[in-house]
Order: sequence, then C-alpha cells, then structure tokens
Amino acid sequence: MTSPAEPGGPHGARETATDVAGAGSPRALVVGTGLIGGSLGLALRQRGWHVSGLDADAGRATAALAAGALDEIGEGLAAEVVFLATPVAIAAEIGQAVLADRRRPADVVVSDVGGVKTPITTALSDPRFVGGHPMAGSEQIGIDGAEADLFVGATWVLTPTATTDPGAYSRLSAVVASLGADVVALSPADHDRMVAVVSHVPHLVAATLMNAAATGAETDALLLRLAAGGFRDMTRVAAGHPGIWPDICSDNSTAIVAALDQLLGDLGTMRDRVATRDRAELFDVLERAARARRALPARAVRPEHLAELRVPVEDREGVFAEITTDASNLGINIYDLEVAHSAEGPRGVLVMVVGSEDARRFRDAIVERGYHCTIGELS
Amino acid sequence: MTSPAEPGGPHGARETATDVAGAGSPRALVVGTGLIGGSLGLALRQRGWHVSGLDADAGRATAALAAGALDEIGEGLAAEVVFLATPVAIAAEIGQAVLADRRRPADVVVSDVGGVKTPITTALSDPRFVGGHPMAGSEQIGIDGAEADLFVGATWVLTPTATTDPGAYSRLSAVVASLGADVVALSPADHDRMVAVVSHVPHLVAATLMNAAATGAETDALLLRLAAGGFRDMTRVAAGHPGIWPDICSDNSTAIVAALDQLLGDLGTMRDRVATRDRAELFDVLERAARARRALPARAVRPEHLAELRVPVEDREGVFAEITTDASNLGINIYDLEVAHSAEGPRGVLVMVVGSEDARRFRDAIVERGYHCTIGELS
Repeated sequence: MTSPAEPGGPHGARETATDVAGAGSPRALVVGTGLIGGSLGLALRQRGWHVSGLDADAGRATAALAAGALDEIGEGLAAEVVFLATPVAIAAEIGQAVLADRRRPADVVVSDVGGVKTPITTALSDPRFVGGHPMAGSEQIGIDGAEADLFVGATWVLTPTATTDPGAYSRLSAVVASLGADVVALSPADHDRMVAVVSHVPHLVAATLMNAAATGAETDALLLRLAAGGFRDMTRVAAGHPGIWPDICSDNSTAIVAALDQLLGDLGTMRDRVATRDRAELFDVLERAARARRALPARAVRPEHLAELRVPVEDREGVFAEITTDASNLGINIYDLEVAHSAEGPRGVLVMVVGSEDARRFRDAIVERGYHCTIGELS
Repeated sequence: MTSPAEPGGPHGARETATDVAGAGSPRALVVGTGLIGGSLGLALRQRGWHVSGLDADAGRATAALAAGALDEIGEGLAAEVVFLATPVAIAAEIGQAVLADRRRPADVVVSDVGGVKTPITTALSDPRFVGGHPMAGSEQIGIDGAEADLFVGATWVLTPTATTDPGAYSRLSAVVASLGADVVALSPADHDRMVAVVSHVPHLVAATLMNAAATGAETDALLLRLAAGGFRDMTRVAAGHPGIWPDICSDNSTAIVAALDQLLGDLGTMRDRVATRDRAELFDVLERAARARRALPARAVRPEHLAELRVPVEDREGVFAEITTDASNLGINIYDLEVAHSAEGPRGVLVMVVGSEDARRFRDAIVERGYHCTIGELS
C-alpha cells in the first residue's frame, strides 16, 4: 500500500493534515466556484475552514468571494484538501497539475464532484486522489444557487481504488461527513453503473417525456393544461441546465446504454401488457412498484448501535479497495474509517465503523479474503 | 339539439335546477364516498349544498358521514347533480339507473370522475350525462385523504359529446367551477389521447423505473441509497394505490399503446445518441426539454380581459360538441358557458366566455362552421 505518511518517503512525514495550515484554521482550495464549488466554500467556511478559490472565469471567482463562499481568490498553496468543482472535461487536467505541484503539502488530498467516476479515477491514479460525487444539486445554476447546507443529509459517494491511500480517504471522508453528508464508499465502476439507473437514465426519461408532451401540445393545444402534479414531478429534473449532460452521457455511455436497454425492454413488456389488457399482470407490476416506492429510504439514518472493525493490513496494494467494495456488495455502509499506522513503517490497522447489525457479516467477508479482523462494540 | 327544458317535453318544463331542492339548499348526490367522492361532499357542503351519499360499502358511507362529507346516507332523489365517484367498472351501470329513475328531477345532471372518458360517454349517451375528470388526487386512499379544497386550482375536464345538452353542461360546469376547479372542455377522444401522454404513460414509466431500481438493488445493495431527489420525484406517483390502473390501462389501451410506442421510439433514439456519444444532439434535446419544462404553466390563470361570444343555435345535434372541440383544437379555454333559450322552442343562443385575446380566432372558427357569432367585451 502506498502511504504518503511513510517516514522518509518522498514527501516527508507529517502527522495530521491540519498542521499544514500552520496556526489557526484548516485550509481548503476550491477550484470552480459555481453552484457546487460555492456551496462547498460556504459550508467549509461555516465550519471554520479558510477557503481559497479559483475559477477560469474571474468574474465568477469575484462573485463567490462577494457571496462569502471564499476567504480569498488564489491558489491556496497551503490547502490540505482540494476540491475540483470545475466542468468534468477539465477536472482531470487541473487535478494532475495540483498533484504535481511540489509547493503543495505532500499529503494534500484531492477530490472532485463529477457525476461519472471511472474516467477521472483512471486519469488520476494518484494515492492522494479520491473521486467524489455529492448527490446534491439544484435546478439553479452558479453561485446564486449556492447554499451552505446543500450537502446536509445528502449522499456523497467516494470512490477509492486499489491505488488510493486509506489515510487520504479517511481524511477526506471526515471532511465530507462534517458537512452533514452521508458518505458511501463505492468502486468507480459500481458508482457509474448505479447512477446510470437512479440518476442518468431517469434524467433522460424526464427530458423525453417532456419533449413528447411539448410535441403533442403542437397539435393538442390544451395538452399541457392537463399536466397535473404527477407529470410535473416526473419532469422537474428536465428543467435543469443541460450543460453537464453531454459529458455525463459520453463518460458513462456504456452504463447508460445498458440501463436504457433494460428500460426499453421493461417498457416494451409493459406496452404488451396494456395492448393485451393483461389486468392481473398490470396490477402485479404496479403493486410491486408501489411497495418498492413506499419502502424507498427517505434519508440514511445512522444506526443507533455501531461496531468497530479492526483489520491489520500489510503493505499490500488494493486491500482497501477490496474491503470497501465488499462492504458495498453486502449493502453495508462504512460510517467512519481511519488508518492507524504502526510505528515501524507501512503496516497499519484499518479501523472501520459500521452498524452493529452488519458487523459479523462484514467481518466474515473480510476473513474470507484472508485478513484478520476483530469486532469491538461502540456505544 | 335535445333540450330537457323544452316546454311540454317528456319531463315537463322547469326553469332552474335549484328549484328541485325546494326551499333551501341545492342538492347533490355522490355515489362512491372514497377520496374523490368524499372530497366532493366536503367541497359541496362547504358551499351550501345538501349532499346525499351512497357507497356499496356501508362502512365507507358511514365514515364519510362521520367525516362531514355527507348530510345523509341515501339515494338523494331530489338531487339536481349526481356525481359518480365509484370504481369505473360500475359507474356506467349506476349512471344508467340514475338517469332512468323517473323519481328524479327530469333535468338531473349526471357526471363521473373516471380517468378515461370514451367508454363511459359511449355507454351513457344521455343528454343529461356529461363525462368529467377532475385532475386532482393524492397518494392517500379513501375518506381519510378527502379534502374540501382538493379541487381548488385543479384542472377538471368535462367531455361534452354530440348528444350532450348544453344546458346540462353549463349547469355542471358552473358547479365544478364553484369548487375552485379550472374547467376544460374536450371531446372524450381528445381527453383520452392527451391523458395517455401526460398521465397514464408517465405513471407506467414511473412504476417501471421504480421496479428497475428495486431489481438493481437486489445485486447492488447500496443502489437505493443513491436515489436522490430527482429519482424520488420521478417515482412518487408509483407509490399510489394500483387498484385503478388495470381499468385505466384496459379502457384507454389504444391511446396508451400509441403513446408508449412513441416513447419507445424516442427513447431508442436517445439510446443511440448516448451510444454514439452525439454530444451536440444530446445537448439540443435536453435544452429543448429544459425550455419546455420551464415554460410549463404552473396553474391556469383566468385572463384579465374576457369576451363573450354569442352564437344563435338551431335545433341541430352536435353543434355544441363541434364548437367546444374547435375551441380545444385552438387551445382556447371556455371559462363560462350558458344556453339562453328563446321563448319559442328548441332554438337558443349559446353564450361562451373566453379570454379577450382568443375571441376573434374563436369567432372565425365558429363562422367557418356556418354559424353566426357576435363578440362582446366583458370587464
């Protein structure tokens, strides 16, 4: 396992990221000061961070400063955490430059906020980069829509890979959690496959329904007058700015096509049921959907009882990604994670906090991988 | 034109429906006292009506009485307006019995609340029946979800046909408007084609998206944790009780299949755009949807300036349906409508109120049909 905290390593040892800022506040850099970047700035500053910001559009950076989302416009060379909140097309390049910049702290953690994770995690296979996707947004655009509590209660996916440094992950995860978000660790491919189903395809469907109704309204002039609450709900996301979608569709093309093919098959079956007036089957499929929708979790709730799993890890690449992927396959969320390094070098103990009821299942999976694992109950 | 108000006609002459109730309140009968029937009862009583109610389930009628939605459980033989709010499968039969009941006022107006209008308007081709569809609802079921202001601001479609008595239409329309609803007149076929696009197919799509996500969650255990606001919005209607949908899908099968085929074609095109990463076309189609969604009228607003169109109508069947269909084809809403009968028999004057800006277009269409038409500005 690569560890930037390795004593005598190229970047030298440092105990905690907070030291970097010197006396006073921890420091962050936000690159791209639109809706998400601006909200990040507001949220971090509210929690005592010193936030520097950059934007390719100088006017946008000035507006973010005026809106209180930044302490200063600048490169934030002392930042211990850097969030790339630019359009995805340029995020990887900027990330590369940040990670290569020897003036920055050696253990700077870099993350991004894009909606597709495989391309950027492939491009930035640095131990200090952890892909991220805050699943929060708004139909608003730019700094005017920014809110300090945009992430409170939102799911924020982090996508560690085999090259990710667990220490970088755990520091980033703590920052994200401190903003009120609910951190979910997934592999980039798992993330991309899942968001195709619950976000990308629904968005394309909403746009398609809206366009079909708009086209229908050209001949049936009163058609949109009949669009009641259900239609309004279903097409709401289609009102969002289309700017990010060509990138998303292009970057996640394979998963979106697969999910669309599945949907086309399912809708074709539905069509045949309606054509043959198969009432019993129609009832069953709608009943199944009603049950699933009613059971849809409103918001993730941190379980009342937590358990701590401790896994001694050797200098072996990928252990961390293996274990977090196991967790997501088992439907287990890791609420906290840290790496306790032993004194004598790269080996350490991976400490993970999960719901008590999940602890045994998770330990069994970890043991099956050939690791030791002990469980301690918390609270 | 058939007119129940024709002097010496089979039912005898009567000036206004309100006379039927004798001294005091106008009287209504609601058959079926669930969510819609109960809400109708509450709304009518709040406006001074005496409301009788019937339900095949005696317990449900008692609950509606207890909830204040009814004045009494009973046949309401003096009711001048009867709303059929039963399951659609039995509404036509009950409507037939009500219309055939000689103990009732000769000019009783009967309407229903079903989501598909062609079958019931075909089955009940009585001049005194006017199909209706209040486009309001709730995910709740039964009298517990009933609300007096369920219809305030909602679109309520009425579907006059060639056999509909304009007098019955105008009385019903006035009652519905008095409940706060926005009345839209459409032919049954137009209604069914349009709701397939803006209601029925979106509902089936919501259920299909929900089921696809639920199936995905069987292997990707954290998938539903990623379901953010957009997905929740898009699948909300799928939580509703599936009970009414087999009837709707069966009764409106042709229009739903046509709209689903259109959607399948559009989604197939979308799929190909994603597969070929056609960024320019993806942007255009999403941009078009965003514009259309932002322009979606929030709620119908009665125009500030109204005009009155007066059309002398002879004893010719279908004139009324012709004219209202013209209006809907032109995207013109008729805000008020009444028939002023002349003293000497079946001829009369159709008086319609529309937005001032629509008056000339509408008059031109009416004149093209071979009628006289004069415009008078109101307010």
